[in-house]
Amino acid sequence: MFYHIKELQYNAKPDRPDPVYAKKLQEVLGGQFGEISVMMQYLFQGWNCRGEQKYRDMLLDIGTEEIAHVEMLATMIAQLLDNAPVEDQENAAKDPIIGAVMGGMNPQHAIVSGLGARPDDSEGYPWTSRYTIASGNLLADFRANLNAESQGRLQVVRLYEMTDDKGVRDMLSFLIARDTMHQNQWMAAIEELEQKQKPIVPATFNQQYEKQEVSYSFMNFSEGEESRQGRWASGKSMDGQAEFEYISEPRAMGQIPFLQPAPPHIHGTPPSPL
Amino acid sequence: MFYHIKELQYNAKPDRPDPVYAKKLQEVLGGQFGEISVMMQYLFQGWNCRGEQKYRDMLLDIGTEEIAHVEMLATMIAQLLDNAPVEDQENAAKDPIIGAVMGGMNPQHAIVSGLGARPDDSEGYPWTSRYTIASGNLLADFRANLNAESQGRLQVVRLYEMTDDKGVRDMLSFLIARDTMHQNQWMAAIEELEQKQKPIVPATFNQQYEKQEVSYSFMNFSEGEESRQGRWASGKSMDGQAEFEYISEPRAMGQIPFLQPAPPHIHGTPPSPL
Amino acid sequence: MFYHIKELQYNAKPDRPDPVYAKKLQEVLGGQFGEISVMMQYLFQGWNCRGEQKYRDMLLDIGTEEIAHVEMLATMIAQLLDNAPVEDQENAAKDPIIGAVMGGMNPQHAIVSGLGARPDDSEGYPWTSRYTIASGNLLADFRANLNAESQGRLQVVRLYEMTDDKGVRDMLSFLIARDTMHQNQWMAAIEELEQKQKPIVPATFNQQYEKQEVSYSFMNFSEGEESRQGRWASGKSMDGQAEFEYISEPRAMGQIPFLQPAPPHIHGTPPSPL
Amino acid sequence: MFYHIKELQYNAKPDRPDPVYAKKLQEVLGGQFGEISVMMQYLFQGWNCRGEQKYRDMLLDIGTEEIAHVEMLATMIAQLLDNAPVEDQENAAKDPIIGAVMGGMNPQHAIVSGLGARPDDSEGYPWTSRYTIASGNLLADFRANLNAESQGRLQVVRLYEMTDDKGVRDMLSFLIARDTMHQNQWMAAIEELEQKQKPIVPATFNQQYEKQEVSYSFMNFSEGEESRQGRWASGKSMDGQAEFEYISEPRAMGQIPFLQPAPPHIHGTPPSPL
Amino acid sequence: MFYHIKELQYNAKPDRPDPVYAKKLQEVLGGQFGEISVMMQYLFQGWNCRGEQKYRDMLLDIGTEEIAHVEMLATMIAQLLDNAPVEDQENAAKDPIIGAVMGGMNPQHAIVSGLGARPDDSEGYPWTSRYTIASGNLLADFRANLNAESQGRLQVVRLYEMTDDKGVRDMLSFLIARDTMHQNQWMAAIEELEQKQKPIVPATFNQQYEKQEVSYSFMNFSEGEESRQGRWASGKSMDGQAEFEYISEPRAMGQIPFLQPAPPHIHGTPPSPL
Amino acid sequence: MFYHIKELQYNAKPDRPDPVYAKKLQEVLGGQFGEISVMMQYLFQGWNCRGEQKYRDMLLDIGTEEIAHVEMLATMIAQLLDNAPVEDQENAAKDPIIGAVMGGMNPQHAIVSGLGARPDDSEGYPWTSRYTIASGNLLADFRANLNAESQGRLQVVRLYEMTDDKGVRDMLSFLIARDTMHQNQWMAAIEELEQKQKPIVPATFNQQYEKQEVSYSFMNFSEGEESRQGRWASGKSMDGQAEFEYISEPRAMGQIPFLQPAPPHIHGTPPSPL
Repeated sequence: MFYHIKELQYNAKPDRPDPVYAKKLQEVLGGQFGEISVMMQYLFQGWNCRGEQKYRDMLLDIGTEEIAHVEMLATMIAQLLDNAPVEDQENAAKDPIIGAVMGGMNPQHAIVSGLGARPDDSEGYPWTSRYTIASGNLLADFRANLNAESQGRLQVVRLYEMTDDKGVRDMLSFLIARDTMHQNQWMAAIEELEQKQKPIVPATFNQQYEKQEVSYSFMNFSEGEESRQGRWASGKSMDGQAEFEYISEPRAMGQIPFLQPAPPHIHGTPPSPL
Repeated sequence: MFYHIKELQYNAKPDRPDPVYAKKLQEVLGGQFGEISVMMQYLFQGWNCRGEQKYRDMLLDIGTEEIAHVEMLATMIAQLLDNAPVEDQENAAKDPIIGAVMGGMNPQHAIVSGLGARPDDSEGYPWTSRYTIASGNLLADFRANLNAESQGRLQVVRLYEMTDDKGVRDMLSFLIARDTMHQNQWMAAIEELEQKQKPIVPATFNQQYEKQEVSYSFMNFSEGEESRQGRWASGKSMDGQAEFEYISEPRAMGQIPFLQPAPPHIHGTPPSPL
Repeated sequence: MFYHIKELQYNAKPDRPDPVYAKKLQEVLGGQFGEISVMMQYLFQGWNCRGEQKYRDMLLDIGTEEIAHVEMLATMIAQLLDNAPVEDQENAAKDPIIGAVMGGMNPQHAIVSGLGARPDDSEGYPWTSRYTIASGNLLADFRANLNAESQGRLQVVRLYEMTDDKGVRDMLSFLIARDTMHQNQWMAAIEELEQKQKPIVPATFNQQYEKQEVSYSFMNFSEGEESRQGRWASGKSMDGQAEFEYISEPRAMGQIPFLQPAPPHIHGTPPSPL
Repeated sequence: MFYHIKELQYNAKPDRPDPVYAKKLQEVLGGQFGEISVMMQYLFQGWNCRGEQKYRDMLLDIGTEEIAHVEMLATMIAQLLDNAPVEDQENAAKDPIIGAVMGGMNPQHAIVSGLGARPDDSEGYPWTSRYTIASGNLLADFRANLNAESQGRLQVVRLYEMTDDKGVRDMLSFLIARDTMHQNQWMAAIEELEQKQKPIVPATFNQQYEKQEVSYSFMNFSEGEESRQGRWASGKSMDGQAEFEYISEPRAMGQIPFLQPAPPHIHGTPPSPL
Repeated sequence: MFYHIKELQYNAKPDRPDPVYAKKLQEVLGGQFGEISVMMQYLFQGWNCRGEQKYRDMLLDIGTEEIAHVEMLATMIAQLLDNAPVEDQENAAKDPIIGAVMGGMNPQHAIVSGLGARPDDSEGYPWTSRYTIASGNLLADFRANLNAESQGRLQVVRLYEMTDDKGVRDMLSFLIARDTMHQNQWMAAIEELEQKQKPIVPATFNQQYEKQEVSYSFMNFSEGEESRQGRWASGKSMDGQAEFEYISEPRAMGQIPFLQPAPPHIHGTPPSPL
Repeated sequence: MFYHIKELQYNAKPDRPDPVYAKKLQEVLGGQFGEISVMMQYLFQGWNCRGEQKYRDMLLDIGTEEIAHVEMLATMIAQLLDNAPVEDQENAAKDPIIGAVMGGMNPQHAIVSGLGARPDDSEGYPWTSRYTIASGNLLADFRANLNAESQGRLQVVRLYEMTDDKGVRDMLSFLIARDTMHQNQWMAAIEELEQKQKPIVPATFNQQYEKQEVSYSFMNFSEGEESRQGRWASGKSMDGQAEFEYISEPRAMGQIPFLQPAPPHIHGTPPSPL
């Protein structure tokens, strides 16, 4: 169960309205790697957690923090939309600054949400739960989380570069710092699990049932061998089980496919002239 | 540019048709972490690559291999659909085995694709490009890739457990082995980049601009302190810059939000009785 | 069955082209609360209607009218797109007015639909049938309809404020008037059904099977008690069955969840070190 | 900002696993009118609220409660999935009960989420933010909320009828009771706002600018006049401004549309033989 | 503007309920090539038509007919859902026939639409306007229409094979016949336009601006030359402008791509060790 | 299986960056009729092909070529994004040209993909597999392909008209030429199949089971008879089986629908006052 308090986790006050920036900032609210995504991802991983209680508790701690980040961004966006120009375009265009602003706004910020934040990304695409993952395997999921925090911090940093509003930058500096922590956090949790288990997910599948002759081979499917120069092409494999091997000219090992004609009730292409 | 050869990368021949399993196998073809996702993700990362040529080459090598995996799965699914029962349900239901099969099939396998594979997941949801990421930052993206291969191998292993068809298991044993390699590969590439850069993405953002007092703090937003027991709550941070700190009772640092009324042309809630 | 006549239900003639406004006007054609939504919602409610014939007839009357509204908006948008500038941007940008227009247009209006209206919203997001509802319970659905007409009229009014084109405003004044009627209509239909049934949907569920001690309690889940001041916090409940009660400090009534580990074939997080 | 406590708001313990029912129960978790929808809708309405503080507070109270409902449903679904049969279908089908269960399960519950709840509906369709609305006009939005609680309670009641598991029914009886309160709550809030403003949304648009001759007319667009029998066809209009009027044979008031040919660079249909 | 009459265009009465078939039949109502798709496609093509009036008129004739087909299918599906078993699964599964039925039903037919048709496909995926096309070029669009009627008739025929309900087959025999006409109709309209214009869309683009040395070459991008045997590989081209040519070993004509590093504010992969 | 070579199929080098045009060009990369669509459509048709080997081979030839077109467009877009202005809008707007550029850019090109191409359309909508079709009936599918190449060439031509960048136009002139070939190719393949089979898809359905009295009738569902003037309204039908007939006043042939009330556990509208 949850409780709400009225104060925001950190300040979210722009120096001045900026409806074009409001549109851009939607990306880290309702985009693929926005705060709604991590909020939902961590909460569902926590609720579904069948592992040790400390993982469930940790997931719900961070998931609960992310709801507060969604709240901060929504509050910021609503204020960036104050006084957005929505008068008629013809007149507006006579002032190139207003014209540029109106061309760059998300029209739904005026028409649909009445100067409120939307659970959408910077292109107006709605948030979808397919952005999240909770697989029941915590090592797999912590890698998803490390990715989400990496993409997320990258996007917030890019947005930081796109404004010089001190109030906006202040809030973003907080989110960037929390993402620093959260990348550290998932790296720590991953290290802990990799030490308990083997690093290949799922660790519980007996490797004797996989086609082991291709388990450590890099296959060079494009002309040229620049790809031979990486750590992945030679030396000990990262799971410590074998040596990496570089296959310069990988060969097909399978059949030439042949599908039998469909039965008549399927009305596929008739096998011969009627 | 690309060339095709007729042989599959590895055999894809089921021992017998199984239309219910065909539906399930769609997950690793057209699902969130299916082969279409990694194919598109690696190709776009390669095409957009502004880093060293060896990364571009490596990405296009593996992206090109993944097209072949899509091909193997599509071929397998088409064969699993051979002879699927599509006659009328009333009669079918009299034979409980046929009834169960028909209840468990994806009807679009008969009605729409005429016993062919579909670019959809196991629930019939279409593949969407929002499953992929290519951010222009390779460390961020390689973490996305490690996650994709972790989720992907986990799903293939689960599907391996759900059948005893030897032909299907043979093909899956190949895909599982390749995913072993691909997890190793992305771990290797990540290690290489983390050694060149700092591990926090993006490494190029000057941390003095982030709110550093919260950059290494775990915040306990739920009652109870089980979350204190993890590696993330104490000791050296993973980036080596600081010590983790555990905040038992995190406090709000921000304002109580107040939004000004919308201007009249927005027709929001009127501020007072009309 | 349906018949078409060539005249529009009302005039749809702009004074002049305005491709930026055409983009905005798409919201009330193909958006969440646009005319396609109400058209499809009323038609499906009518076709699925298992209640009295007068409701079916009324639903199909209004659904049929909405097809005519879709037609008016499509016709208007096509005319607003006449002469849209689509030449190359570099030159266009030299004239700030043209530049602003081109920046604010939906590029698909030129590239995809060739200056025709699209079944999309103002952000180019396609109309989806998930915007509609037909539940088989008319009281529930009439509330959906009243909401749709409220959101719809609000959006049309906002669009009315964003233009001074007399032809566009003339058409919008007609749609606004019809939405006045349609809000009245659904309020009337709701009143009629609430008088026949009880106002809580579904009226047919025996309330003795619900957890009645929380059926009339407002729970204050956030710090502070401003929410105590509303009609919902005290006095007779709207269904006349009880008094509203205000719970200042709601307490959890449930268990601390514990999930058992997944069986081995699921390959979840291993319960202990391997 | 938010805090979490470990206890659920109410018990969520099934008597026994039932993976087919788990699939159905997803509807009220991640469907169009599921708990995620109301959680997100109320939180965004609260965060965007530019009206009196008591409305903001009330919206965040109920939005915070809904997070707890999402938590209860996720917990319940995970337990209903315990011991779900995922072995191979061929053998399973020999036992018709297991066969029916496997045919009726959502395969993603095993393959993707490893026996965890998903943020999807009962057909596996992902939750999307387009299910929510926050318009900036509270009367409009409270009507959306009353609809959501009406559809929601209807769906939970239908699910109650589909099981005889006492633990499941106990939890549903709690949700049904809360929906009773929430329908009452929105009716109360609507009444309060309708008394302050006029009942037609938006109340602030001056009706002299709408085409008033059609503001109170029911138009009979289908053959037959059953629709004349309703409250909406005669008597005082619900807003008290006029009398309802019934138009038996509505006539078109608009032009026959004619669109000019597209300019050459659009490459539309050539106006005449080339 | 549109009028409705109460009679269906053709009978839609099943002999008996069949909820599993109801789910399947949704494909041709709300699927990619279902009746909603052609209805919306023809209406939008008509409303956007900038060509001769006879095309607009014809498009609106057929679009209006398709609304009647949507109506017939919705009516049929509602009746197929009469008496659908929705009691608890555990008991139901004891009767294998009921169990199979329940496993094969769409749960939303009971929970969400209360035994009504839905604007979705046979996998519960919602209809989306991205299924439709109206390009402003009638020859292009009539090819889209011929495809839609070809896919549509194929799907209806497959559904005809999946039932022996005489009432259902009677209705389908009508839809199949209309699709026969509609395929004929679009072939006729295409022939007419191809005779007025050249057959390559758009006919108005001056071919001297295309890279003419590859305008009539079939390129063999896969090993083996079976593809040489078709009409497309030799002989006069279909537009009569040239001879088809078969390129056995197509060669790349472009550069090896090289992208410059991103500027610092983008925070892409750093070009060298920091 | 597939191989990659480093050279592009044709040059993809713009003369200068143009981020607004980059947004527009996304349409033919990731839009409904973009290169991803034809790539996936042809590959799946090939992999699912149960007809003669020459069709499978031809489909995989062209599908493989289309991967190269996706590669060319992605490469071009990345270069058009070089040096895109992403600094703060307020300053930018002072220079109307920069302001227009920033208003017209896709913000995700900077924030999400770091100046890389995206698998989305020109409105930022993600590519979805629902754009493709592979029905198992090659005549039906070749019609889908002819449509795709017609819409595709039309869109590329429109984009050609919107730029005067010589490098961009050079690449587009190649794509336009290939689309000329591909329209010719599908016309040739269609002619070949129509001569083997009958032209109505599916040719294998015995027409005696369709309602033949309406198989060749054009029905005039809208007032006025302009639609009588087309080739579709009189003369020999295109399949040579009959004469077209024009029905001036089509009449309903079906029942007035009546649905029985839902059973009590569905909680539909109660049939009478409670």
